[in-house]
Amino acid sequence: MPVTQITLLPGYAPDVRNRLVDRVSQAVRSVIDSPEAGTTTFVNEAATYRRDGRVFAQGRAAHPVASERVQAYLAAMENRDLPLAQTFLASDFVMCFPGGVRMQSLDELVQWARGRYRFVRKTTEAWDESWQGDVTVVHCHGTLAGEWLDGTPFEGIRYIDRFELLAGLIRRQDVWNDLGEHRARQAAAQ
Amino acid sequence: MPVTQITLLPGYAPDVRNRLVDRVSQAVRSVIDSPEAGTTTFVNEAATYRRDGRVFAQGRAAHPVASERVQAYLAAMENRDLPLAQTFLASDFVMCFPGGVRMQSLDELVQWARGRYRFVRKTTEAWDESWQGDVTVVHCHGTLAGEWLDGTPFEGIRYIDRFELLAGLIRRQDVWNDLGEHRARQAAAQ
Amino acid sequence: MPVTQITLLPGYAPDVRNRLVDRVSQAVRSVIDSPEAGTTTFVNEAATYRRDGRVFAQGRAAHPVASERVQAYLAAMENRDLPLAQTFLASDFVMCFPGGVRMQSLDELVQWARGRYRFVRKTTEAWDESWQGDVTVVHCHGTLAGEWLDGTPFEGIRYIDRFELLAGLIRRQDVWNDLGEHRARQAAAQ
Amino acid sequence: MPVTQITLLPGYAPDVRNRLVDRVSQAVRSVIDSPEAGTTTFVNEAATYRRDGRVFAQGRAAHPVASERVQAYLAAMENRDLPLAQTFLASDFVMCFPGGVRMQSLDELVQWARGRYRFVRKTTEAWDESWQGDVTVVHCHGTLAGEWLDGTPFEGIRYIDRFELLAGLIRRQDVWNDLGEHRARQAAAQ
Amino acid sequence: MPVTQITLLPGYAPDVRNRLVDRVSQAVRSVIDSPEAGTTTFVNEAATYRRDGRVFAQGRAAHPVASERVQAYLAAMENRDLPLAQTFLASDFVMCFPGGVRMQSLDELVQWARGRYRFVRKTTEAWDESWQGDVTVVHCHGTLAGEWLDGTPFEGIRYIDRFELLAGLIRRQDVWNDLGEHRARQAAAQ
Amino acid sequence: MPVTQITLLPGYAPDVRNRLVDRVSQAVRSVIDSPEAGTTTFVNEAATYRRDGRVFAQGRAAHPVASERVQAYLAAMENRDLPLAQTFLASDFVMCFPGGVRMQSLDELVQWARGRYRFVRKTTEAWDESWQGDVTVVHCHGTLAGEWLDGTPFEGIRYIDRFELLAGLIRRQDVWNDLGEHRARQAAAQ
Repeated sequence: MPVTQITLLPGYAPDVRNRLVDRVSQAVRSVIDSPEAGTTTFVNEAATYRRDGRVFAQGRAAHPVASERVQAYLAAMENRDLPLAQTFLASDFVMCFPGGVRMQSLDELVQWARGRYRFVRKTTEAWDESWQGDVTVVHCHGTLAGEWLDGTPFEGIRYIDRFELLAGLIRRQDVWNDLGEHRARQAAAQ
Repeated sequence: MPVTQITLLPGYAPDVRNRLVDRVSQAVRSVIDSPEAGTTTFVNEAATYRRDGRVFAQGRAAHPVASERVQAYLAAMENRDLPLAQTFLASDFVMCFPGGVRMQSLDELVQWARGRYRFVRKTTEAWDESWQGDVTVVHCHGTLAGEWLDGTPFEGIRYIDRFELLAGLIRRQDVWNDLGEHRARQAAAQ
Repeated sequence: MPVTQITLLPGYAPDVRNRLVDRVSQAVRSVIDSPEAGTTTFVNEAATYRRDGRVFAQGRAAHPVASERVQAYLAAMENRDLPLAQTFLASDFVMCFPGGVRMQSLDELVQWARGRYRFVRKTTEAWDESWQGDVTVVHCHGTLAGEWLDGTPFEGIRYIDRFELLAGLIRRQDVWNDLGEHRARQAAAQ
Repeated sequence: MPVTQITLLPGYAPDVRNRLVDRVSQAVRSVIDSPEAGTTTFVNEAATYRRDGRVFAQGRAAHPVASERVQAYLAAMENRDLPLAQTFLASDFVMCFPGGVRMQSLDELVQWARGRYRFVRKTTEAWDESWQGDVTVVHCHGTLAGEWLDGTPFEGIRYIDRFELLAGLIRRQDVWNDLGEHRARQAAAQ
Repeated sequence: MPVTQITLLPGYAPDVRNRLVDRVSQAVRSVIDSPEAGTTTFVNEAATYRRDGRVFAQGRAAHPVASERVQAYLAAMENRDLPLAQTFLASDFVMCFPGGVRMQSLDELVQWARGRYRFVRKTTEAWDESWQGDVTVVHCHGTLAGEWLDGTPFEGIRYIDRFELLAGLIRRQDVWNDLGEHRARQAAAQ
Repeated sequence: MPVTQITLLPGYAPDVRNRLVDRVSQAVRSVIDSPEAGTTTFVNEAATYRRDGRVFAQGRAAHPVASERVQAYLAAMENRDLPLAQTFLASDFVMCFPGGVRMQSLDELVQWARGRYRFVRKTTEAWDESWQGDVTVVHCHGTLAGEWLDGTPFEGIRYIDRFELLAGLIRRQDVWNDLGEHRARQAAAQ
């Protein structure tokens, strides 16, 4: 145990059903200390389904994978493809960067970053998705590499990002990293 | 749709079953764009259950709520109750603090913190749990308040913590915050 | 086939569950030409149930049996217990009697009947319930016996009543009978 | 709740399955005071089904919709298409008309009606189906319009018909209406 | 897979439910090459059950374990407790012993055996039950030990018995063994 | 009751599913004294299935019918087609014949049989399968006909065979028959 049966309307792609049984199994195992071997989850397709006085001809759409959306957004940012990056953002998007810098547009962000480093690239150690109903929260953390404004390279500087997604769009990004610690250490060393 | 039926052995406390239907519903809704009104999840109790050639007399234990474990650990740390805090940690516990400082014992941590501030308290804005099978990852973020070594108070400084829990014990803690940014700004201001 | 499984929260009385499996079996057999022997219906009690973002502690109330409500109302009317009869009626109750006479209160009805017969009693041949969602329609038909205003007895005069019930209360009553035919025949015979 | 799962053999047309989930939902809601939003009913198709020692290759036939059968019968009667009307009747068909007139053949009925009116047409306000296992009872009520034998038109005269159907055929029809009341009133007025 | 859910009325003893999930799992695994680890079977208790137009208040009785019945019968025979042994037999019991000797009563059997050996005891290597619907067939095989009529002991002589049980009673017993081979060998040796 | 639902991955042939519902029904009825009319078993096909941390693309293979395998093996032996007969045997095949003669190869058996009869043919009265998890035990019994070494024919001599099959291969055969009894009788008669 537990044995979990999910009844869906037909028409979902196999990878959506796979994602569903994976996530439901993980949710079950987060509550019950059941080994993988004892955790059974399957999808059943209903031929006809009625709720709320209506017969539904097909199921609701599947969401994109939130962490893949974030990954694509971050790649677009690293490539400075702001129009593409913008497509991942909700209209009420806000972000907060180290030092508590709050911004609302990617242009602002690019402007602000120009005062800090020439460029930066992320190496991500882990993606963590938190499923919270309408909202999915995605965290990624790892290290930053890039060049300071004076051209000095840096690497291995820890970072973490937190994203809130609603209906597949990022509506909030929060960023923490050790760049400040690093600069302080450099300053102290000089 | 979707309608999800979870079959358990009898004996779980109501709050465990409630947590189970909540989390499974959230996992389902993270994949399918189904409104709450159309998301049905229920628990069925099996009278007898057999798998792997054995009849099971009772279900596997329920896990504690990972974020509550982390919260209790952080409270113990703020209260400097290291023996209590230690009970939440796995034997192979590791932590990494701003600047990439890696430590393995709470004593080390206390020692290290003494060189940075007199005390610090967290105000948490959000707890995010990520259910990943054997491991649950907990993030909390918010702001720090406390006193610098010279007695100057500070507050509103952003932080985020990431915890990995296995079998109810914290085996890894990663911490990021803006203390470095803050000190740098202070230094620049002087 | 068909095999029908109804999942309820615990707490319903056995007679409610029996009524439920009876009616659901009848609904199934009204669509599929399945013999009773091949029609299986059972009730399963869920330990925990969540829909619309909430865990429900207990099931919704059971309705009274609509035809039993009507029967009690008709008995109260035959016994001239208007206060009791009134308790079965919705606040927007309307009725329509032979000749298209529309009334809204039991007092009106009693007044109107005084101009037609001394009293009347129903012998009911059949009760038919029609389950229509929020509304249940009840028909009863059979024969009337009683006394004309001049004291002449009558009996065996066909009648049918139609009742609409909402939330257990009668909101509409329509009456047809052969009293008019009968009087016409009597008149012709004289 | 309630969540109802109906398991059928494959091969039923979508409209049959839709009718099934509609009716079962209505039967459920006639017993439990559950809102439409909380009433879930779905059809599951079994790949293989065995009962009574036999594996069934396909499900039992679906019944026609009883009220549609009655409607077609009444239309044939209004159009004086007796051969067509006859096809809707069981071999032991009986009918009872106002005044308690019992007949067994449509010819009798036509003969009898010729002594009462030139023609009559029904305007139906409501169809009510009562699912009773082998038998389905259909009531329809509304008003009659037509011409008396002397050519005088009439309209708005209340009627109700009750039909018993077995295996898709009408085996009993009972008719009530206010024609008698109407003629009595006319006679009184003259 | 496969996941098998058996719905019963409440009231069965745990050992009956355990036997049920064991046997059903074995039946499943006799058809599908599924390992024990992947074979899940559980019992669900229905709160209310209706079939064939009736609501059943409790489930049908459980059968005794057929091989335990046979074992008790054989023990009674070895103990020469014929009245007890008789209680395990159906009224139309028949048996067939080596050489095709057909008998119908235990007295006949005892009489016949007296002409062959003083006594015999069975050591059973395996019990095999074959579930065939109304009938369960039990085979046991192993070795015989005992004394010939002249008092010479014997042992290790192979035997097999086949029993047919209906409604918990043995209606047929067929016996094969190597006593004939043994005697022939002895005769040849002399 | 009982109602048994078996959930499989799609892709099994209809005859496999039929065999499955037959055997599971028989296993159920071996425990519960339920008539065939009240024993319902059906197969449900899951669209997606996950256990042990993996999503399974297709179900495990179906076993051949054990008694059909034995029948084919016996036919090959009667036809002296040893290479074909060998294909039904596990590599660790052992057999035991009347008198306790243990052999491991078909050649040995043929050699041994040559000292007993010219040929023998089986007429089988019943096949009994016993489903025991990994192993299925098959018994067949009936009569032997053939010719003695001196050409004298015989017939109607009782026999029973017991076979153990693992993974579709026979790993053990035990044989009992009345040939010894018969020869003893013949010897006595001479």
